[in-house]
Amino acid sequence: MRATLLYQAGDVRVEDVPDPKIQQPADAVIRIVAGCVCGSDLWPYKSAPYTDHPRQMGHEFIGVVEDRGLQTSCPRGGQWGLNGVDGGQGEAARVPYADGVLVKLPVAEDSELLPDLLTLSDVLCTGYHAARTAGVRTGESVAVIGDGAVGLCAVISARLLGAERIILMGRHTQRTDLGLQFGATDVVPGRGQDGIDAVRELTGGAGADRVLECVGLKDALVQSAGAVRDGGTISRVGAPQYPEVPFGFGEFRRNLTLTGGVAPARAYMEELMPHILSGEIRPGRVFDCIVPLGQVAEGYRLMNDREALKVLVRP
Amino acid sequence: MRATLLYQAGDVRVEDVPDPKIQQPADAVIRIVAGCVCGSDLWPYKSAPYTDHPRQMGHEFIGVVEDRGLQTSCPRGGQWGLNGVDGGQGEAARVPYADGVLVKLPVAEDSELLPDLLTLSDVLCTGYHAARTAGVRTGESVAVIGDGAVGLCAVISARLLGAERIILMGRHTQRTDLGLQFGATDVVPGRGQDGIDAVRELTGGAGADRVLECVGLKDALVQSAGAVRDGGTISRVGAPQYPEVPFGFGEFRRNLTLTGGVAPARAYMEELMPHILSGEIRPGRVFDCIVPLGQVAEGYRLMNDREALKVLVRP
Repeated sequence: MRATLLYQAGDVRVEDVPDPKIQQPADAVIRIVAGCVCGSDLWPYKSAPYTDHPRQMGHEFIGVVEDRGLQTSCPRGGQWGLNGVDGGQGEAARVPYADGVLVKLPVAEDSELLPDLLTLSDVLCTGYHAARTAGVRTGESVAVIGDGAVGLCAVISARLLGAERIILMGRHTQRTDLGLQFGATDVVPGRGQDGIDAVRELTGGAGADRVLECVGLKDALVQSAGAVRDGGTISRVGAPQYPEVPFGFGEFRRNLTLTGGVAPARAYMEELMPHILSGEIRPGRVFDCIVPLGQVAEGYRLMNDREALKVLVRP
Repeated sequence: MRATLLYQAGDVRVEDVPDPKIQQPADAVIRIVAGCVCGSDLWPYKSAPYTDHPRQMGHEFIGVVEDRGLQTSCPRGGQWGLNGVDGGQGEAARVPYADGVLVKLPVAEDSELLPDLLTLSDVLCTGYHAARTAGVRTGESVAVIGDGAVGLCAVISARLLGAERIILMGRHTQRTDLGLQFGATDVVPGRGQDGIDAVRELTGGAGADRVLECVGLKDALVQSAGAVRDGGTISRVGAPQYPEVPFGFGEFRRNLTLTGGVAPARAYMEELMPHILSGEIRPGRVFDCIVPLGQVAEGYRLMNDREALKVLVRP
């Protein structure tokens, strides 16, 4: 089968790899119907050194079960595209512990809801993880830092959890416009102290009850600390590109909480799916670009150059 | 009146200062019955540069209302011993916004419970803040880092909240013995990786559900991250002696939460007092040294040299 391989920074190729086969009793082999490029795929795309053993890329996908092992469940996880497990930007994938990993969709594979349901595989659940771990509650004010696909899904999630004021911090008008349609009440394009001042002005001087940090850079974390109220919570779901968090005595004095992390997407899928099936949320609108598998390299380029918000890959 | 002044590192003097007087409508003037030295008093005691305008020391005390202004409440706080407000290691203190700040005790000023009740003014509430913000729940495992007075009060608090396993990390046998009497189920004297390994062994390899960091040094925070389970919470109540928290991608990957901060002691006083009045908890046992005000300098020395766990000051 064909699959997406990353040889080094900027070097994405589609090549033939062995067809996935059942290897363990709990495996399933699925045929991939739709995959997409994640923001986190861009980190190795920017920085990976050359390798003769390129990694199969892609961890967000929907597929059809073609072959299936026995049921089981296992607390030990792995990663798509590593250690003999296929990636999701290809034609097929072996899914270990399939009974616990896969979620059955109540739609046909040509459903119009497919892009929306595809977001359950990571990006929507990551935004939701931010809102859930931050403890967003009815009536609260929430600042979302970052207008990428995760940030926009965080807006959707904050709204689902009843936030009254949702301040989206970002400067790409096309994206923040989508954020407003998703439920953001305000957009703050300013960064650094300007952005902090704007959020404080919108929240009566106090700062937002919760900040959802959907970028992963240290500047975004500093901005989060400035935008959150004393006693408030910052949840970070952007993969940290920094070794240390600048939370010293000042943030201690203010009783700030830092939470979040890699989203356990699987944990939220059943909970979020009904909102998609009912049409209440349309997270699939983050996909503004669809590429066939053969042009996945162009998809990476478009997303990396911010010409596309999020790319859906059709095998 | 006489009060404790800190002129510079190691230079604590008791001198005459003006008697406190009502200055604002909500003030009260109290006569101090018992004060104590806090671990945080030791930071300036170790490092303060010389000043001609020495600060009145002490923020943990019990007193009797001698003079009183009108009721009011105010969201703006201050600090004992700063900006014209007296410290608690003296003979009297003016208490701003006294109606909201002071808590009436249902005992006489010669009560045997006074040392226990004195801990409500900071140290017990700080340990409790750690346990509460960490979210300690019935049946959980809790590691407490630090066998100082705050750590021991964190043990008391974790037990109050129903923790099943309370692992006290410290190496001063006299203190950890008291910790065992307070409810610790295990003592781990090892530090660094040794300490982490011991906590993991006691928790089936997973790490503790919650870690209460009662030291304030970076090493203690690193130890906390090593001792907590994936998805667990670290609450820090030791005043941070570091500008940055070493929580990068690894801790993000593990979904660790960092919370805590300066304890809002006032918030917990009514909640904790019944446990003291009933004799259920005896946090006053952390006071292993009582000094008269005239010998407060010696009290500082004893506590700083770890010859005393915590010093009670009698005016």
